[in-house]
Amino acid sequence: MKAIISVPLPQAAYDIVVAPAGLDHLGAWLAAAEPPLLKSGQKVLVVSNPTVFRHYGQRVLDSLQQAGYRVSHCVLPAGERYKTLRSVQKIYDAALAHRLERGSAMVALGGGVIGDMTGFAAATWLRGIAVVQVPTSLLAMVDAAIGGKTGVNHPQGKNLIGAFHQPRLVVIDPEVLKTLPAREFRAAMAEIIKYGVIWDGELFEGLEAAQRLDQVRYLPPELLQLILQRSCQAKADVVAQDEKEAGLRAILNYGHTIGHAIESLMQYRGINHGEAVAIGMVAAAAIATQLGWWDQAEADRQHQLLVKAALPTQIPAGLASDDIVALLSTDKKVQDGRVRFVLPKGIGQADTTDAVSEPLIRSVLAAMAA
Amino acid sequence: MKAIISVPLPQAAYDIVVAPAGLDHLGAWLAAAEPPLLKSGQKVLVVSNPTVFRHYGQRVLDSLQQAGYRVSHCVLPAGERYKTLRSVQKIYDAALAHRLERGSAMVALGGGVIGDMTGFAAATWLRGIAVVQVPTSLLAMVDAAIGGKTGVNHPQGKNLIGAFHQPRLVVIDPEVLKTLPAREFRAAMAEIIKYGVIWDGELFEGLEAAQRLDQVRYLPPELLQLILQRSCQAKADVVAQDEKEAGLRAILNYGHTIGHAIESLMQYRGINHGEAVAIGMVAAAAIATQLGWWDQAEADRQHQLLVKAALPTQIPAGLASDDIVALLSTDKKVQDGRVRFVLPKGIGQADTTDAVSEPLIRSVLAAMAA
Repeated sequence: MKAIISVPLPQAAYDIVVAPAGLDHLGAWLAAAEPPLLKSGQKVLVVSNPTVFRHYGQRVLDSLQQAGYRVSHCVLPAGERYKTLRSVQKIYDAALAHRLERGSAMVALGGGVIGDMTGFAAATWLRGIAVVQVPTSLLAMVDAAIGGKTGVNHPQGKNLIGAFHQPRLVVIDPEVLKTLPAREFRAAMAEIIKYGVIWDGELFEGLEAAQRLDQVRYLPPELLQLILQRSCQAKADVVAQDEKEAGLRAILNYGHTIGHAIESLMQYRGINHGEAVAIGMVAAAAIATQLGWWDQAEADRQHQLLVKAALPTQIPAGLASDDIVALLSTDKKVQDGRVRFVLPKGIGQADTTDAVSEPLIRSVLAAMAA
Repeated sequence: MKAIISVPLPQAAYDIVVAPAGLDHLGAWLAAAEPPLLKSGQKVLVVSNPTVFRHYGQRVLDSLQQAGYRVSHCVLPAGERYKTLRSVQKIYDAALAHRLERGSAMVALGGGVIGDMTGFAAATWLRGIAVVQVPTSLLAMVDAAIGGKTGVNHPQGKNLIGAFHQPRLVVIDPEVLKTLPAREFRAAMAEIIKYGVIWDGELFEGLEAAQRLDQVRYLPPELLQLILQRSCQAKADVVAQDEKEAGLRAILNYGHTIGHAIESLMQYRGINHGEAVAIGMVAAAAIATQLGWWDQAEADRQHQLLVKAALPTQIPAGLASDDIVALLSTDKKVQDGRVRFVLPKGIGQADTTDAVSEPLIRSVLAAMAA
């Protein structure tokens, strides 16, 4: 079961490899391509967090060393609150200590936080060196690791500082998901359901046919492989058509407008990104049905999938609609002062609009109170 | 006397306007292009340093406001030692305070330090917003403001952190040079002489024909305009052929390999960038003549131009050749562990090589001791 998904970007085409035991082949895949994705003898800095590094660090280092690379590593604290310029500075310090050169590479071994920070460090070290993404969380596999968005948080806003920097290769090893906490697995299902809604109706129906979606151990390996492939393909399709988020790529933000506001107001505590996105998808679906963009029956099917994945569908207790609405105006997706929403028009189809009125947002949020 | 030099980059073409009183036309030029370079009503953050802002800040703010932009500003301390991530964070804070959006812009009003930091902040705010370069030092006019290199220093090395981010427009107003300290003017002459050596033999001969090159007040306005135009054209030519420094663009580093090592060893005190480059050009010329790449007579003509611009041509007292050689190995231009040099092959012609032996470097440096 090895699948290769191509991301055909004109300046920076690359492959996503989805394969069990992929960790052990990383070095060989980098070296064996013709021409090699990374020249033999080059330096590679592996960036990870303590838990992931303990589980998988040595296998990745071994794989790279056996392929002839000069390997070093840098372990950063885990968690969204460490996704800061300060952590990136630690990567810079490691890059300097190991004398990374323009032909060197960084490998991001971890979830979205490690991937975003390592990508940003690679984008900005010597004005850009290669980065390889090895996502170990389901969320990073189907989202953050693909598409070249990198960055860190500003104390007052998520992902305000960043750069576009496409990876040289993405390696996805489904087997590492067995050590992923169940809650993180469920959170990622929000993004996977999102791909079903905005892009891939067959993926959506595949998820509907699954027995359970709340824990990885209930998914047959074939289904997991299929979900990974189709989700990566959806993201790759969209990114390939709109690398720099000029238009189409905005649909990937389905559920994120209100989702970001919620996780920001909760200061990223007690809720994770996927859970916030799930709530945002419910809100966007309600807006879409109110505007006549989407059938209620299809919105209900989305709701059922989110429930099957044991994801939240209500505004967390204690959050005021006023605060959410106020925060929307600071979102990156604001253009000319108007908030942009991504709304579904069918299963597998979505579009953006900035014509959502504030009263409508308020009424939808009020109806979703816990 | 208004000249427009085009930088025909495929993804990001832009113009350099060289015109007296250009500061007062900045807003109009941004708004009047068809389509406008920056939409009317957009927010613009002007970044500057205290001295430059006192002289020219209000004129730039007025020009932008009159063209319909919503203007704010951010003043940072002057000097290379403030070219740090910490200063960039102050720009981020200002961008957040003024709620800059993806359609907003930053204007860099100042020398190379302001230009590099503002460019980097713009490259990384919301993963990239527009930047307009308004260089006020001669060095920034002919070098830093053109070509999209942005960045800051790491405590242990210059420009190690950065990104490529092309400006939307570059506005050069020669009249602001009247407030430029004489020493900074001379330092910039090093880069201008460099363009004569590596790219434009006619510029070189024009400089040879000048009466004096040591202070701006001795240069007739027509000669100054000509120097600016031809230097910008040289930089634009090279950048257009090699935006990301894959090959040709490396020749712009003529004089910079040893120059960077010298200013780094002196911790950027007692010497400025142009002076260090002048010394580096003398060293590179000596290496080139020793290797048989360059005629001694032409190397002597370069030497005479540097002396006419009152630039240093010897290694500063107290600097050990060993320390310079040791530091070369940490330079960004190191590839596969070998130091790359740019060497002249004639007046207006240069090439790169990594075949310069360490003993040759040492003997050249020894001969240049003060």
